[in-house]
Amino acid sequence: MTSAVSAPSATPTSPARGLVCRACGAEYPLAAQHACYECFGPLEVAYDQAALARVTRADIESGPQNIWRYAALLPTGQDPAQRVTLNPGMTPLVAAPALASAIGLQAPLYVKDDSANPTHSFKDRVVSVALTAARGLGFNRFACASTGNLANSVAAHAARVGAPSIVFIPYDLEQGKVITTAVYGGDLVAIEGSYDDVNRLCGELVETDEFEDTAFVNVNVRPFYAEGSKTLGYEVAEQLGWRIPAQVVIPMASGELLTKIDKAFSELVEIGLATAPADGWTVFGAQSEGCNPIATALHRGTDEIIPVKPTGIAKSLNIGDPAAGAYAIEAVRRTGGWMDYANDEEIRAGIRLLAETTGVFAETAGGTTVAVLQKLVAAGKLDPSKETVVYNTGEGLKTIDAVAEQVGPTYQIKPSLRGAREAGLLG
Amino acid sequence: MTSAVSAPSATPTSPARGLVCRACGAEYPLAAQHACYECFGPLEVAYDQAALARVTRADIESGPQNIWRYAALLPTGQDPAQRVTLNPGMTPLVAAPALASAIGLQAPLYVKDDSANPTHSFKDRVVSVALTAARGLGFNRFACASTGNLANSVAAHAARVGAPSIVFIPYDLEQGKVITTAVYGGDLVAIEGSYDDVNRLCGELVETDEFEDTAFVNVNVRPFYAEGSKTLGYEVAEQLGWRIPAQVVIPMASGELLTKIDKAFSELVEIGLATAPADGWTVFGAQSEGCNPIATALHRGTDEIIPVKPTGIAKSLNIGDPAAGAYAIEAVRRTGGWMDYANDEEIRAGIRLLAETTGVFAETAGGTTVAVLQKLVAAGKLDPSKETVVYNTGEGLKTIDAVAEQVGPTYQIKPSLRGAREAGLLG
Repeated sequence: MTSAVSAPSATPTSPARGLVCRACGAEYPLAAQHACYECFGPLEVAYDQAALARVTRADIESGPQNIWRYAALLPTGQDPAQRVTLNPGMTPLVAAPALASAIGLQAPLYVKDDSANPTHSFKDRVVSVALTAARGLGFNRFACASTGNLANSVAAHAARVGAPSIVFIPYDLEQGKVITTAVYGGDLVAIEGSYDDVNRLCGELVETDEFEDTAFVNVNVRPFYAEGSKTLGYEVAEQLGWRIPAQVVIPMASGELLTKIDKAFSELVEIGLATAPADGWTVFGAQSEGCNPIATALHRGTDEIIPVKPTGIAKSLNIGDPAAGAYAIEAVRRTGGWMDYANDEEIRAGIRLLAETTGVFAETAGGTTVAVLQKLVAAGKLDPSKETVVYNTGEGLKTIDAVAEQVGPTYQIKPSLRGAREAGLLG
Repeated sequence: MTSAVSAPSATPTSPARGLVCRACGAEYPLAAQHACYECFGPLEVAYDQAALARVTRADIESGPQNIWRYAALLPTGQDPAQRVTLNPGMTPLVAAPALASAIGLQAPLYVKDDSANPTHSFKDRVVSVALTAARGLGFNRFACASTGNLANSVAAHAARVGAPSIVFIPYDLEQGKVITTAVYGGDLVAIEGSYDDVNRLCGELVETDEFEDTAFVNVNVRPFYAEGSKTLGYEVAEQLGWRIPAQVVIPMASGELLTKIDKAFSELVEIGLATAPADGWTVFGAQSEGCNPIATALHRGTDEIIPVKPTGIAKSLNIGDPAAGAYAIEAVRRTGGWMDYANDEEIRAGIRLLAETTGVFAETAGGTTVAVLQKLVAAGKLDPSKETVVYNTGEGLKTIDAVAEQVGPTYQIKPSLRGAREAGLLG
């Protein structure tokens, strides 16, 4: 070989063996299908356990510093040249001793800060996996129904690879999220309705001839999309030295993120890559008071989700009819956890407490999760003597109005020592 | 040894041997001093070349995925336990073929995207180095004069380590930058004047008894602060496989960033860590038309900077009296480069072009740099056949007003197939 660049090794194949119905167990080949033909239940990716079991820590640790280090545990993206990606992931796991102390936790507390992703939310993970799968399946236009962060991510991914995109959002989103989508130059459709209306319309559009070549990341390629969230479980375990934390607190919109982090922990333990605490891990879910159908069902002792019409400032969590709600309840019950919800004032206070104690500026979803963490400790639901990870899934700059009336300059002065003295800055 | 955790190896010492005057060459010990007692010239950190020469690529490559992998080339931060840091750095070097094609570059073009830092600008690099030095020098309060990004970073760093902060900004900053500072809970002083007024006042405050224990990152510990920018040179070289790119385009406010990237390239070549192109590298500088004192001096054929009163939307570049302007001109002349400036409309267009072709949403400073890159190509100053890196130093979400009137939803429809059909989305 005379080339200075070494030849790539053979591309590993996907460990996914098909799609399986979460409700009835019916199996389907890997394709752009999200609901079971038998029972209309949701489909998820099923893996060849033997393929997963061949993955080693060393394989992962020698991979890139992004989600693709886990490609051997994902349904797609094994070939780097075929990825549609901004290379998200490997976001900081921030030790938060001052936050722990402020809310009465004695054991170590960490913030998994996914605002560090390219478009500053965890959605870059799921979009990278969904669009890589979509390209492999032959789609040439990328779309989504979004509460904002997903729109940012789909539009940015499409721009990166030069593909057309069409993104659907509720018309009353935060300006930060609207502009951050529109700037990438794709089509952006504002829908006069709620996220649930947007989602319903996308479910109809995907069946039309005009959208035949369009992958809606969270509709027709949803099973692939959802798998991207597993990387938020893998990374935390790897960053803790291949240990599963005793407790995790996770925001819930559709509820899918929570189920996939739990699934990631299970996979790592099953294939021997990570160790779990002796009495297992416990999963907690966070919603806002303005949109709490999953937590309310758990509190009622059922797993029947009654849809709500969302209100409140945590817009990225405002899914009133959450697709994976029952599965989130199952994971929380199975692991001995709990769910709670925070009102707008508590969410604002959560954003500020997190910022002041860790230097992490979260969007309203992160404020919600911190506020719920506090409530869970106060109510004795979360054990303050156990290691805990709280997930921040988004960026404060996108929901700046949430705190804009509460914080600002502490002084305004003339540009002189006299001005400083009159303001009391010189004693 | 019975402990499961291996003992840390002995902490390496700093390779810095002192401070040296850039104007007269007078030498001083490492301390909180920024101006020469002999000639009032600016001081910078001088290194023990033998210590730098002992650093290997393997040392760096085995380090953390942040600026501290280069600790052996920095004046401070060798001991991880003593760092005051959000662990910035190792931000993406994004291949930008569509941008290259749009502006007529045939050779590879990359965007070094520093919006990926924790507070989403390159300032996290300089603040981490400055505050780590400041803590080592005994300071217990952290401060800065800022056009916004620096304020965000100092306040977040202080919050991370639980230290008090006091940050000085012009009163007319973008709301995104004001709130993103205030949310961390330190003192925030809005000054009724320009950045240059803010900077002047901080120069006076630092001499008062009340501010004796206060490190102003860009005043009394400025020599350390400035060194943090070297990491933007180191990273690009390492990410290119230990090669210096042929051409770099860098935004200029004080001009210091440009001089330090050039210094980093020189250091890497001198100590044998990176190779330079056969005919060297060329450095280009970008300013806005509303604040172009450095570019104007170069265009006039002098290195005497005539201060200006800044105007225009590129507020993070609005330093009318740039401290390192003459040194930036020296670096550009020595390497055969050039400087240019862009007006507000060109800056807005630069933001949009970068977003549409790469998926990177830059703040106005990034838009300025892309716009100037275009001008340099069009004017034949930048060689389209040579590998080029353009630096994006900040995040579009912080200056969202710059494009808010230009982009938005492309459709607004009712939530129904009929609404979609009426809007022409169904052919």
